[in-house]
Amino acid sequence: MDNQTQTDFEAALQRKIDLKTKPQGALGRIETLAVQVARLQRTLTPRMGRAQLAIFAGDHGIAADGVSAYPAEVTRQMVLNFAGGGAAANVFAAVNGLDLRVVNAGVKGGPFDMAGIYDAPIGPGTASFLRGPAMTSDQCRDALETGRRIGAEGAYDAMACGEMGIGNTSSASVLTHLLTGVELDVVVGRGTGLDDDGLARKRSVLGRAVARVTGPLAPLQALTEFGGFEIAMMTGAMLGAAQARRVVLVDGFIATAAALLAARIEPGSRGAMVFCHRSAEPGHAALLAALQADPLLALDMRLGEGTGAALAWPLVRAAVAMLNDMASFEDAGVSGPA
Amino acid sequence: MDNQTQTDFEAALQRKIDLKTKPQGALGRIETLAVQVARLQRTLTPRMGRAQLAIFAGDHGIAADGVSAYPAEVTRQMVLNFAGGGAAANVFAAVNGLDLRVVNAGVKGGPFDMAGIYDAPIGPGTASFLRGPAMTSDQCRDALETGRRIGAEGAYDAMACGEMGIGNTSSASVLTHLLTGVELDVVVGRGTGLDDDGLARKRSVLGRAVARVTGPLAPLQALTEFGGFEIAMMTGAMLGAAQARRVVLVDGFIATAAALLAARIEPGSRGAMVFCHRSAEPGHAALLAALQADPLLALDMRLGEGTGAALAWPLVRAAVAMLNDMASFEDAGVSGPA
Repeated sequence: MDNQTQTDFEAALQRKIDLKTKPQGALGRIETLAVQVARLQRTLTPRMGRAQLAIFAGDHGIAADGVSAYPAEVTRQMVLNFAGGGAAANVFAAVNGLDLRVVNAGVKGGPFDMAGIYDAPIGPGTASFLRGPAMTSDQCRDALETGRRIGAEGAYDAMACGEMGIGNTSSASVLTHLLTGVELDVVVGRGTGLDDDGLARKRSVLGRAVARVTGPLAPLQALTEFGGFEIAMMTGAMLGAAQARRVVLVDGFIATAAALLAARIEPGSRGAMVFCHRSAEPGHAALLAALQADPLLALDMRLGEGTGAALAWPLVRAAVAMLNDMASFEDAGVSGPA
Repeated sequence: MDNQTQTDFEAALQRKIDLKTKPQGALGRIETLAVQVARLQRTLTPRMGRAQLAIFAGDHGIAADGVSAYPAEVTRQMVLNFAGGGAAANVFAAVNGLDLRVVNAGVKGGPFDMAGIYDAPIGPGTASFLRGPAMTSDQCRDALETGRRIGAEGAYDAMACGEMGIGNTSSASVLTHLLTGVELDVVVGRGTGLDDDGLARKRSVLGRAVARVTGPLAPLQALTEFGGFEIAMMTGAMLGAAQARRVVLVDGFIATAAALLAARIEPGSRGAMVFCHRSAEPGHAALLAALQADPLLALDMRLGEGTGAALAWPLVRAAVAMLNDMASFEDAGVSGPA
């Protein structure tokens, strides 16, 4: 759109919302959401029919360095749990009507080769970033490209991204530190439930890992050095979905690290992102601040898997339905303010 | 249940949640919600199938004293808008699958006598509480009884209560002041959108109204003196639904005034209440504090009609589905913490 067309569009959109049968602004953030989706789809009658929740799973070499309360096998076990329908993400996706797609972005133990799991492994888990880069730059590029393709596939109006990977709060913590400049000790949290000793160990391990590199890293360098296959693929999926003008439903800490990477790589992608929930993991606040994002939900959750995104999806549908289906004062024969 | 049975039940409930395939506590308030519903229904396998949103509408004599930005006719016009499907409450109920019931609790202009509106008027709007009681004690009792019946009707697992009534933030503000002790000027807000002069006038009118009475009022006295027919009927509906062990989905400022009345009349009803959203209307905070309630959503909404309750309903469904449908570590073959 040129500038005049854009100005006209914005005015028509705000007028449409203000003529609905409610006091001006009375639906608060639901109105803001409606504006965001209309802008993204460039129409006063946006569509919000189907959403996909894609869960990207990958293993992390750093998990062998004692940074998680759970053993690394749990990544693979949880992928099987997703395929079997038993995880929180399955339950919330079913309740709220999102299609679920489980993506093996690089889980230890080889391809799953079974229905319900999409095998697209970049490798058998990353290398430990304590001793060298987590992945090669070719692997990083491949993960981003696969993600871009997944983000644009299917007939979806929204793309929720979730993840599973034992050790991935470690990866996300380092990325958060490098991308936002907030101190490492502030952004490192208990992940799946470390005790005080475990947390101290995680901080120490990640401090040594960060000391491997000097100077600021570009987003892709940071992702290559300290990322995970699932984080890289999720970043790509967000870019692909945003490019296809789909709403990107951003989950918690790990997903928001991918969102910040995506926004740094292609700033235009930020407009597609809806931040779904505020995680209890401490690093999340630093990422949200860097993205100037205020999530829709704050439910003290810290699970990942896209669970927060699946729970927030009905709010996006409601916002679009408000714009399309609510009557105007004139339609309904309702008087305006005296 | 006796004390031992209660203790065993609580332990079994917490164990069931903690064995789900997620770190302990990782679903935050979704877990708390599941516990609340299981306790209410007294089962480890609660049901959360159908919900009804009942919108209670009533007119307020105080509206003629210049306390609202909208003319009093809007109450009746909006009831017709609910019946026609064009209001925000219709749209959100449709998106989230709640059945809608529109109740004429006492709208000016007589019965509607049409499909889609349940006529149960206590009177043609309340008297202005600036000059005397809003209603008689017989009217208050009738409204509560009708509400109790409505709250227990149908095959519902949850009851969302909404309201419509030009002037009813004035009524709710006075009730909030009287029930919580928080100063009137603090709890009076702009309602549907008063400007500074309008707000000053509303404060002055309500100050004079409160000066009519002396000393503390019992909840039913306060409701009779300063309530509305829709507020009284909503209070009754909450009591009836809680008695029938249904979840009571409490909306914003006006509905929470009814919830505090219900909790003061029958303290046991508090356990059925789920507080759905934090209204932008200032008096809401005082009510929530008195009820020790922390709403699920904070979306800067201030519309009423049960819109916040309709938006929060999927979270309650998700919580119950988590309890019923998520796999345990053992079921799914997932390892616990190392």
